[in-house]
Amino acid sequence: MFTQQGFARRNEQIRPSAIREALKVTAQSDIISFAGGLPAQELFPVQEIAAACQHVLRDQASGAFALQYGPSEGYAPLRELIAADLDAEGIRVAPDQVLITTGSQQGLDLAAKIFLDPGDAVLLENPTYLGALSAFNAYEASYLTVATDTQGMRVDEVERLLATSPRLPKFIYLVPNFSNPLGTTLSADRRTALTALAREYGVPVLEDDPYVLTRFEGATPPSLRALGGDATILLRSFSKTVSPGFRLGIAVAAPEILARMVAAKQACDLHTSTFLQQVMFTYLLTGHLTGHMEKVRDVYRRRRDVMLRALAVHFPPGCSWNVPSGGLFVWVTLPVGVDAEAMLPAAVAERVAFIPGNAFHPKGGGANTMRLNFSQPDESAIEEGIMRLAAVVERALIAAPAVARVHR
Amino acid sequence: MFTQQGFARRNEQIRPSAIREALKVTAQSDIISFAGGLPAQELFPVQEIAAACQHVLRDQASGAFALQYGPSEGYAPLRELIAADLDAEGIRVAPDQVLITTGSQQGLDLAAKIFLDPGDAVLLENPTYLGALSAFNAYEASYLTVATDTQGMRVDEVERLLATSPRLPKFIYLVPNFSNPLGTTLSADRRTALTALAREYGVPVLEDDPYVLTRFEGATPPSLRALGGDATILLRSFSKTVSPGFRLGIAVAAPEILARMVAAKQACDLHTSTFLQQVMFTYLLTGHLTGHMEKVRDVYRRRRDVMLRALAVHFPPGCSWNVPSGGLFVWVTLPVGVDAEAMLPAAVAERVAFIPGNAFHPKGGGANTMRLNFSQPDESAIEEGIMRLAAVVERALIAAPAVARVHR
Repeated sequence: MFTQQGFARRNEQIRPSAIREALKVTAQSDIISFAGGLPAQELFPVQEIAAACQHVLRDQASGAFALQYGPSEGYAPLRELIAADLDAEGIRVAPDQVLITTGSQQGLDLAAKIFLDPGDAVLLENPTYLGALSAFNAYEASYLTVATDTQGMRVDEVERLLATSPRLPKFIYLVPNFSNPLGTTLSADRRTALTALAREYGVPVLEDDPYVLTRFEGATPPSLRALGGDATILLRSFSKTVSPGFRLGIAVAAPEILARMVAAKQACDLHTSTFLQQVMFTYLLTGHLTGHMEKVRDVYRRRRDVMLRALAVHFPPGCSWNVPSGGLFVWVTLPVGVDAEAMLPAAVAERVAFIPGNAFHPKGGGANTMRLNFSQPDESAIEEGIMRLAAVVERALIAAPAVARVHR
Repeated sequence: MFTQQGFARRNEQIRPSAIREALKVTAQSDIISFAGGLPAQELFPVQEIAAACQHVLRDQASGAFALQYGPSEGYAPLRELIAADLDAEGIRVAPDQVLITTGSQQGLDLAAKIFLDPGDAVLLENPTYLGALSAFNAYEASYLTVATDTQGMRVDEVERLLATSPRLPKFIYLVPNFSNPLGTTLSADRRTALTALAREYGVPVLEDDPYVLTRFEGATPPSLRALGGDATILLRSFSKTVSPGFRLGIAVAAPEILARMVAAKQACDLHTSTFLQQVMFTYLLTGHLTGHMEKVRDVYRRRRDVMLRALAVHFPPGCSWNVPSGGLFVWVTLPVGVDAEAMLPAAVAERVAFIPGNAFHPKGGGANTMRLNFSQPDESAIEEGIMRLAAVVERALIAAPAVARVHR
């Protein structure tokens, strides 16, 4: 036996992500996958990234600098550029309040690491992002959950919980723009109310905002960071804009919080790849991203439309779904009594995959829901995949308890 | 106040690394730095990495694959190549026992994360690697320390501690080849004895082995992993061979342990950069690394020799140091009663930097020691830097309590 003393208690809460496990199956085969949260890779700016790599590695001195160790906070010119870009969005932040993270997943890990002792609570919307639950579970978090509606997180419920919970949560977590998995956006009024609560109760808001630049219609409400300042920790990501394979994210926080995140990051991975930060900096300097995101948004909007139309045509009555204005996901609600997770093997047998909605519910529930990704499959795959999935849903409805059919 | 409930308890043990803080000063100026553990960047294979980047990004399909999300375990061809290379070294390992980490620092973090509850003990040599202490401190580790001599960790003391400690440690940590900071190598006999103890007591050994390929003289004893199999967790790094700026490392462990490390890694950063893994794979396939490491070893050996000669010529009597056969560091012991940390401001004023040895002692001690890096500064900088440092040491000796001068 190679461990007499066993593993840490936290392992009971660290389980392989259902999404990442599902992705393994879908990557192997001819399955049409609505399961992942993958960007459309045919749009990745491959040529421009190649040019940026060549620039960074143009001679020994320049290349050597990029291949050497770097500061834990990140590459200073990239931090400055990001601070300037955030400023242009109305988010005033000094470059030394910007930490470069190894993907925004690391931002979630670091926030949990500096705030959470075992049993400490995080207040979050239900359902919520699975990767955040993974990060928080590893620190043995407990959860206070609030419902969400078409305007996003129910801030009145947040207020009630803050006012009545015996112990305040360590922070409030949410994805304000195109939440994962629901696709909803927190309204401007609720943003103002939520940041006021954060200040009043001294409970910071962790604003996880990877999708903000994917909006293809309507206006973006002000960032919580812009409204709440140092009462918020803002996470951004380059995964949905430039490349998830780079694993580059951003954390913006109050100096007192950021200093702890930097110290925690040193212990995690010393610093994020110097080379990739310099390549990203070089790429961003070209100004290519603006036009690139226009193309991305255009493609995603059309794919969303194809998915919505296919759902309307092929899905049986009694099913409903949201109409997201950005992001990567459509959230489908089946009649009560239908178990989406139980449908997954049949769906995979029909060569189509999705994520059952229960995976996003930290305290259970959501059995009759599913998350469908529309950013990765192309339009004909979406059409075909929804047809296949509709047939699976229909068979499940036939076999479902009467309550599901009554609901129709 | 933006946090009413305060931070997690672990922050008391997470402090910015003394080395990384020192590096900030040394990077800014004309200081000759013996402080870091940086490889010689003028040797980095910049041109070959640039060619590998171009190959990976040669067309949209190839590039898109590299810029997309990937599996948490790592890029499969790279895992296979690493398994084959380890096999050639006598370390039998299946590719699915290889996890690609975001630098070997992440291997330390993941091992601590899956094994340590607050207060759990790690058994380690004293002094030990600072980055490991950072990683373990973040999980509120306690330490059982054993002494080390010219043959490395005192395995007889390990046995005594395992036999007498009220609770066994969760794992044993060491750097077997050219330990950081001492530069010593664990003898073959002690390796056999240590792995036997690991099996007997069911306490895994965390074998942190970033420097093995830097050996410039003598033979490498067998890896603990080769001797102990699944009773050991082997960490390797590409930081001291190809590029620290890539942040690529390797963890090899028993399936039961590796599965937990993979799940923990998902929660930390999802996966390590797909792009960098593919670039590294492409670079390794060229076979360039073998000749590259010959060059690196040759340069490091000469730099070590210059440092040893300069120490012998310039340092006052009563000081001693080791003669490492590889790695990046010389460990200097000053007369008892001299405080190396107190000397650091004077050294920086003379434009020379080092790391005071006390930083590597988890339970205090080592005040009269210092770690000197010989891999980064060139030969003339080493000569000049040691002259400057010798003058600072001499002044400290004059001012030191009588005990230090008596020791001379």
